[in-house]
Amino acid sequence: MKQDLTDLREKLQALLSEQHMQYQQGKVADYIPALAEVNPALMGVAIATIDGQIIGAGQDKTPFSIQSISKIFGLVMAMNRIGDSLWQRINMEPSGQPFNSIIQLEWEKGIPRNPMINAGALLIADVLASHFSSSKLAFLSFMRQLAGSEAVQIDRNVYQSELAHGNRNAALAYLMKSFGNIDAEIPSVLSHYFTQCSVTMSCQQLARSLLFLANKGKDPYTNSNICSAKDAHRINAILSTSGMYDQSGEFAFSVGLPAKSGVGGGVIAVVPSFGVICAWSPPLNPYGNSVVGINLITDIAETLGLSIYH
Amino acid sequence: MKQDLTDLREKLQALLSEQHMQYQQGKVADYIPALAEVNPALMGVAIATIDGQIIGAGQDKTPFSIQSISKIFGLVMAMNRIGDSLWQRINMEPSGQPFNSIIQLEWEKGIPRNPMINAGALLIADVLASHFSSSKLAFLSFMRQLAGSEAVQIDRNVYQSELAHGNRNAALAYLMKSFGNIDAEIPSVLSHYFTQCSVTMSCQQLARSLLFLANKGKDPYTNSNICSAKDAHRINAILSTSGMYDQSGEFAFSVGLPAKSGVGGGVIAVVPSFGVICAWSPPLNPYGNSVVGINLITDIAETLGLSIYH
Amino acid sequence: MKQDLTDLREKLQALLSEQHMQYQQGKVADYIPALAEVNPALMGVAIATIDGQIIGAGQDKTPFSIQSISKIFGLVMAMNRIGDSLWQRINMEPSGQPFNSIIQLEWEKGIPRNPMINAGALLIADVLASHFSSSKLAFLSFMRQLAGSEAVQIDRNVYQSELAHGNRNAALAYLMKSFGNIDAEIPSVLSHYFTQCSVTMSCQQLARSLLFLANKGKDPYTNSNICSAKDAHRINAILSTSGMYDQSGEFAFSVGLPAKSGVGGGVIAVVPSFGVICAWSPPLNPYGNSVVGINLITDIAETLGLSIYH
Amino acid sequence: MKQDLTDLREKLQALLSEQHMQYQQGKVADYIPALAEVNPALMGVAIATIDGQIIGAGQDKTPFSIQSISKIFGLVMAMNRIGDSLWQRINMEPSGQPFNSIIQLEWEKGIPRNPMINAGALLIADVLASHFSSSKLAFLSFMRQLAGSEAVQIDRNVYQSELAHGNRNAALAYLMKSFGNIDAEIPSVLSHYFTQCSVTMSCQQLARSLLFLANKGKDPYTNSNICSAKDAHRINAILSTSGMYDQSGEFAFSVGLPAKSGVGGGVIAVVPSFGVICAWSPPLNPYGNSVVGINLITDIAETLGLSIYH
Repeated sequence: MKQDLTDLREKLQALLSEQHMQYQQGKVADYIPALAEVNPALMGVAIATIDGQIIGAGQDKTPFSIQSISKIFGLVMAMNRIGDSLWQRINMEPSGQPFNSIIQLEWEKGIPRNPMINAGALLIADVLASHFSSSKLAFLSFMRQLAGSEAVQIDRNVYQSELAHGNRNAALAYLMKSFGNIDAEIPSVLSHYFTQCSVTMSCQQLARSLLFLANKGKDPYTNSNICSAKDAHRINAILSTSGMYDQSGEFAFSVGLPAKSGVGGGVIAVVPSFGVICAWSPPLNPYGNSVVGINLITDIAETLGLSIYH
Repeated sequence: MKQDLTDLREKLQALLSEQHMQYQQGKVADYIPALAEVNPALMGVAIATIDGQIIGAGQDKTPFSIQSISKIFGLVMAMNRIGDSLWQRINMEPSGQPFNSIIQLEWEKGIPRNPMINAGALLIADVLASHFSSSKLAFLSFMRQLAGSEAVQIDRNVYQSELAHGNRNAALAYLMKSFGNIDAEIPSVLSHYFTQCSVTMSCQQLARSLLFLANKGKDPYTNSNICSAKDAHRINAILSTSGMYDQSGEFAFSVGLPAKSGVGGGVIAVVPSFGVICAWSPPLNPYGNSVVGINLITDIAETLGLSIYH
Repeated sequence: MKQDLTDLREKLQALLSEQHMQYQQGKVADYIPALAEVNPALMGVAIATIDGQIIGAGQDKTPFSIQSISKIFGLVMAMNRIGDSLWQRINMEPSGQPFNSIIQLEWEKGIPRNPMINAGALLIADVLASHFSSSKLAFLSFMRQLAGSEAVQIDRNVYQSELAHGNRNAALAYLMKSFGNIDAEIPSVLSHYFTQCSVTMSCQQLARSLLFLANKGKDPYTNSNICSAKDAHRINAILSTSGMYDQSGEFAFSVGLPAKSGVGGGVIAVVPSFGVICAWSPPLNPYGNSVVGINLITDIAETLGLSIYH
Repeated sequence: MKQDLTDLREKLQALLSEQHMQYQQGKVADYIPALAEVNPALMGVAIATIDGQIIGAGQDKTPFSIQSISKIFGLVMAMNRIGDSLWQRINMEPSGQPFNSIIQLEWEKGIPRNPMINAGALLIADVLASHFSSSKLAFLSFMRQLAGSEAVQIDRNVYQSELAHGNRNAALAYLMKSFGNIDAEIPSVLSHYFTQCSVTMSCQQLARSLLFLANKGKDPYTNSNICSAKDAHRINAILSTSGMYDQSGEFAFSVGLPAKSGVGGGVIAVVPSFGVICAWSPPLNPYGNSVVGINLITDIAETLGLSIYH
């Protein structure tokens, strides 16, 4: 599906202009002070294709807090590290519950519903903290490799803020531990988890770093296999059913792409055999998804006819 | 994606042979006597393509009780009849709960999570019972049109059996009515719902009748628009996140196709821009999905590389 | 504990006067039109003692809809009829859930938590409908016997209104039936249940009719055994933990008497070895308990030192 | 109700003999090694009366782990310390859920249902840890005062064992903290809580130490007011609806006394205006209550006619 992206760049710019005032429909995440300070009017969008092109518009090179988008990368690392034994400790079903709910975790005896809810990401954090000598460094190194840039950073301010407001995540982790489904000490698990969430990247970096999901597991820039084709498939499936919090069904219904959002305002969408779209705008809708981010990806998917359900 | 299906017919036969004994891993639905009597060793498979070809193997022309597969057809009729106002009364999110659970319905104040769980299908039944002078005849007529056959029937024995064991569905319906989300009288709603479930069709008929979902809403046999392209997309999205009961996530993870199963042992899978697969074998796994049906569709999807997540 | 109630009559009048305006703190039940029409300013109170005295103040002889207070009488009839086998179909634990919740009933597989929540009372109604040739007549006859008056009536207007708004109770009943815990047809069960609720009695009649609970099962007026001493004990225990909806714990905490309320505005409290208090005022607090009814019983219990927890 | 307890002593011995083999119906708590090691055949019983008599049988002077019986004492200290403001942070309704459930705590936004479930006791522990310079010493000192003995101890072995297996309690505490309902640091809260649970006392000591609840708040040995008469009433009310875990309703139904059990095998029952019974035998029924403990108290209450519901 090789195509010239020159026209697309102008199109992106036009779509972004249309969203100019829409960010005011949302509300910047304020559960931690570090996120609440972000300028709500910033927005950016980028598209990376598996043939190596990358275009963008707006603040597409400005780093932002990737937050829950990091759950994808943690999952890849854990799948690579312990293989299918992972799925004995975590499920891959959509949850039908708020992303940070503790009720379902209790019902299902400490087995998280999927890796995209907080309980699941904490379990993944436990796998990494237990299997790497320094899981935080390993994670950062993995992100830099995928983004092709040493500029990928941890925002210490965000990290400290997360840690100071992490009581619910601690509750989820201790509950799983009470069921015997966490190996490491909880402070290590939380420290890894909040480190992941505190990585900052730009739209361009994120779009590029996820190309392997659109390319059967292979990074088109380095030709290295980031994961197996089968696992790329599986991750896209999980993103399709569970990537957009409690709006995942609606996003599939109206857009039709594997996607993941973060409360920092980023949204990524994978277009199999084509590329990755990343949009960013801090204000969130009531589900915790970026208002403008969803609008932009909806417009792009419709304009280019990218849905996987047609 | 025009292709010659001659080779495929042999392949289907081979895959079916491999499943010869696998049905013994499952258990025929026994919540109603009429279903429990079916010969568990029967099995069939058919593939219909949007260019008008149709192939099959085994008992691919034997009618069976379509059960919950009928939820797709009821949904199409309701979407056509009342348009987007439907989505004020029902959601499109995966449920994360057993298909006949009443708990989530109470939490969400009588708004069903999606049209593929029982509560959702009962709400659809209410829409149809309220908007057609004879919704049951209209449904049967719609099914015959799609299957291109007047031979599609209601199994009265199954219908009576369902009605006699329909207390849980009655509870769901009365609960929705207590929230003001059901218009018709409950006995009419249940009568429509159990009529839908009691339709019998063969693998060939089902595969053909759902081609519009793989073909942007258009029936390739008659060139008539069964629904809009947008609604075909939406239904495929719902089937992808919610079509396989509480195994929907796993099915997406391992197969990657919009699909729907019924406790009669049928499973259908939509392959956008290609066609529809229907497999049938009565014994079910603990999720209520046909053991052999899932195996066959998994094999076919893998053999032909049909997943939408690659 | 023989005592002269002359002084008490004046005390009652004084307490009632203090409550003169307090009914405005509550809201008359409006889920059915027939109850919403009641004059909110009416109020009455009566005390009957096991030595045969009875005093009252205000509208203590005005009949009102006893509603859920009827659950006590239904329970007595069912205990007398089928003995301890009743407790295989219903529990005696407090519920910790709203009185008409369907969630706990699902969790506990159709076994109601106790006879004072709606699900439990519907199960009792099933026992009666299944074991009496005419359970509604039997119930009315039982009430007239206990009240010592043929004037006890069914309010047909309330009955029809209940029936027309009984969808949630129908849902509870069908759910229990789906678990095999209801024998009779649901319409019979609901008809009995709503008949019970639609009985009208005055404060004086209610207080007198429940004296057996304060008197080890024996009606002091007739010296007949209404139930065994053991069962009187058991019913008082159930009323103590579960009689005041989701305010039962608070009522025990602050008053300390076995009690039962109804959405008609009545509240009864049993004082073992002394007598029964009945207060009535239609406006309800958010828990569904009469504001003035609770105030009056609280004052009387404190004034006379009646709590069972001292 | 002054009476000679000489005959009663023989009666106690006889009742105990009847229970000789009954402990085999239960199972010693094994969630921590320190409790699992206790000799299951030990049993004791004591009755202390408000007129200063105390009798017992069996191992009535052997110290055992009081576990959840400590919740009563913590509650008294917290009520005395912060008064009625306590009830803005905790409710007094029965829970209808397992004692260590996290689901209800989430539903009710971090407000525990009552002080007898674990979440409630952890909240009480937070009050004490936040309001005493050394809450653990204060607690131990309070226990020694009530028991009239400096021999009351903390079992360090049990304490360490609890701490090592305290993940679920940590989850409850962090969840409450996420709702802003815990002030102190979680490790301090847990440390206080497990210290409380690890106190060891004998039947005689426990019976004597709780006499103030049967005596309108006053310790009959010292004539000091341990709490107000009103608060003694309130605590008895809470024990009546919520003291015996998920068997509280049944205990009220069949015995009819305010009571509290612990997984160490102790059970105490308050008889207002008479005294306190304490029975001990380690093996527990499925609800976590001592099999023999319940049997003994049931027999004594029946023999002496002690129920508050008659």
